[in-house]
Amino acid sequence: MSGIKKTFAPALPVSRDLRIGLFGFGVVGNGLYEVLQATPALQSVIKKICIKNPGKKRLISGEHFTTQASELLDDAEINVILELIDDADAAYEIVKAALQKGKSVVSANKKMIAKHFSELLELQQEFGAALLYEGACCASIPIIRNLEEYYDNDLLSAFRGIINGSTNYILTRIDKDNLSFKEALLEAQQLGFAESDPALDIEGHDAANKLSILLAHAFGTVVSPEELIYTGIAAIKESDANLARQRKVQIKLVGTAKRIGTDKLAAFVLPQFVSADDELSNVSNEFNGLVTESSFADKHFFKGKGAGAFPTAAAVLSDIAALRYNYKYEYKKIAQQANIIHSHDYYLRVFVSASGDTVLDKSNFEWIEEWHNDVNQSWTIAVISAKNLAATRWWKEDGISLILCEDPFIDNVQYKKISKLSLSLAGIE
Amino acid sequence: MSGIKKTFAPALPVSRDLRIGLFGFGVVGNGLYEVLQATPALQSVIKKICIKNPGKKRLISGEHFTTQASELLDDAEINVILELIDDADAAYEIVKAALQKGKSVVSANKKMIAKHFSELLELQQEFGAALLYEGACCASIPIIRNLEEYYDNDLLSAFRGIINGSTNYILTRIDKDNLSFKEALLEAQQLGFAESDPALDIEGHDAANKLSILLAHAFGTVVSPEELIYTGIAAIKESDANLARQRKVQIKLVGTAKRIGTDKLAAFVLPQFVSADDELSNVSNEFNGLVTESSFADKHFFKGKGAGAFPTAAAVLSDIAALRYNYKYEYKKIAQQANIIHSHDYYLRVFVSASGDTVLDKSNFEWIEEWHNDVNQSWTIAVISAKNLAATRWWKEDGISLILCEDPFIDNVQYKKISKLSLSLAGIE
Repeated sequence: MSGIKKTFAPALPVSRDLRIGLFGFGVVGNGLYEVLQATPALQSVIKKICIKNPGKKRLISGEHFTTQASELLDDAEINVILELIDDADAAYEIVKAALQKGKSVVSANKKMIAKHFSELLELQQEFGAALLYEGACCASIPIIRNLEEYYDNDLLSAFRGIINGSTNYILTRIDKDNLSFKEALLEAQQLGFAESDPALDIEGHDAANKLSILLAHAFGTVVSPEELIYTGIAAIKESDANLARQRKVQIKLVGTAKRIGTDKLAAFVLPQFVSADDELSNVSNEFNGLVTESSFADKHFFKGKGAGAFPTAAAVLSDIAALRYNYKYEYKKIAQQANIIHSHDYYLRVFVSASGDTVLDKSNFEWIEEWHNDVNQSWTIAVISAKNLAATRWWKEDGISLILCEDPFIDNVQYKKISKLSLSLAGIE
Repeated sequence: MSGIKKTFAPALPVSRDLRIGLFGFGVVGNGLYEVLQATPALQSVIKKICIKNPGKKRLISGEHFTTQASELLDDAEINVILELIDDADAAYEIVKAALQKGKSVVSANKKMIAKHFSELLELQQEFGAALLYEGACCASIPIIRNLEEYYDNDLLSAFRGIINGSTNYILTRIDKDNLSFKEALLEAQQLGFAESDPALDIEGHDAANKLSILLAHAFGTVVSPEELIYTGIAAIKESDANLARQRKVQIKLVGTAKRIGTDKLAAFVLPQFVSADDELSNVSNEFNGLVTESSFADKHFFKGKGAGAFPTAAAVLSDIAALRYNYKYEYKKIAQQANIIHSHDYYLRVFVSASGDTVLDKSNFEWIEEWHNDVNQSWTIAVISAKNLAATRWWKEDGISLILCEDPFIDNVQYKKISKLSLSLAGIE
């Protein structure tokens, strides 16, 4: 059919055959094994698989397995280590040893990568080996690659996104199908969307790990997860969900990063009211979605499956394909030392509710815009400083939930103008 | 604030200073000039600008300009040519000369690139210079880079998207604000979303050019635009728009590519009814959006501004940034010679309407599912072979509009089972 036939074909770029040592043989590892077997064009074979429990029944023959890490790490023929185990500390030891031996590494272990980011950077630099981890953030969405390659540092001003598929699944089921939190969580676990320790998801640790990794690739800012302001969805009450429905908004767990002025960066993971005209309102169930903002391109929206074995396997596979062409992250934005410093010097508009006898201490707020009391609860819409959120834990106590408003940032000028005026208007002073 | 300080920073990857020769100084060129001036970190300066009309008043001083192409092309100091002129033939001559001299080239001229794709491939290969054109498809969305780098050929099964911002703007204004086609087109032109020759947009030529380029990067299939089945939105009648509103769907101009079996590729640009649960229904005004489908990642959705000076400038800027690190398209999927052949061997479910006295010839259809006649028009929902669409022009005649149904692909097995049965049921045989 085609008129301009391939009269000419470009030379195939130089690629290398990959001989892979795989750590861990759960659902992702299993799926990958099958894909690589079925796709010879990838020129990648799994030579050996290191597992913890040799007794488990498996679908492929025993000679592929070992329980000795050294059998993979010391095998000079193995040029890629694929790390797919659960335990972040053990994973770090494997990845470190592999990089030190000059082997390329692919991992999707966000906890390990966020925790040891600086050391992993140093190891890559010292030994010249590549570490790729597209599967660590937003599973199948190629978001690390896009942040790393596409947005020049000076032009990216913000991103925000739903970066944890498991909590998004739970929130969607609660909102759309009136499930209880417990029922929705159980479903997410049964479908394989939740981490083996569900606290990682529902308390926001997983999202904080991912945000930490994204900050480094988006802004060149290295911040460890525990320095970030974050929480999960465990504190969201039925009354909060009802109020959201009344106001025709959804509650989503959103990771946000935003440049403040020229050299500061606000970054947090918090539940947020999301209205229907927000791109993130179209991100349901286990999907993830991320909106970038940059000076000329304006907004970009990326959406894809953010949890589950196959989407993660897809990202791991794309890293394997990239290694064949010797791709590595260059961490250009960190290297440029752009000095965008993580800061808590900003203010946020938040909804805070307290159930039963819990009393909200008004002195935590800069000013109050709405206040509501009834026999079961009290809630307020107020402006709070990020410094308060970073330094205190009152908003994480039992019975209290804090949810970001739709348009949460208050600029400093507005802050100075309104704060004194409003405090008296609200009748609090 | 940050605890883990940048105790360690990776070495800055090797980059080169760019000295740019710019052809054309319209809105995109003008915007870029300002950005590069304001962003020294990009290490890129525009050394000379070649223009057609030296008499025009411009905001920067005359010494920057010349009317002689050779002043840029023969300047050994200029290592990048930025081609931003309108005329596709003149643009090709410039790009060709630049590549032959080993200069890198950035262009956003989709017509030129689609028309000369094979020659441009050969020139890049022969002279080793890079040609980047992210701005040629979907303006600001980094879609070429993602298709080129992220999806392994074996795993990408389809993509479909709104790839022309101007027609999408017109369709949105007709649908949401009841504007007439003429009013909406005028607005799109005033806002700078339309090509200088509006026929390029509204007759679908621009979208066909973009689809042709996307096919090469997504599937390694080189197909010239005129081989594609395509049309625009000029034929869509008010009665079609009303029917769409009644049925609670939108009409969008959609470019589609889909693998058929193992070695064939269906590809076309046609108006389509899009229901509310389709990602593309959330792509309004001048935005573009594209959904990819691959075996493991499932669906990815990319959305961003698809027309206008700034979004295009953003893409051009990203290409300039990439050139600093010697990025070039490797055309891996073409090089792999995967032999995915463009084919018309498939069937589509379509809506066809004819106004006034125009008579629809039923013999064009495989079978008919719905038929409607009234004094003003007749319309049908029917299944048609792509071969018919490719070989005939009846569906492009005055008074006739053809719009793809929501779920248009009929598989060949279904086709064989239903076709005979339905023709008799429809009472046509």
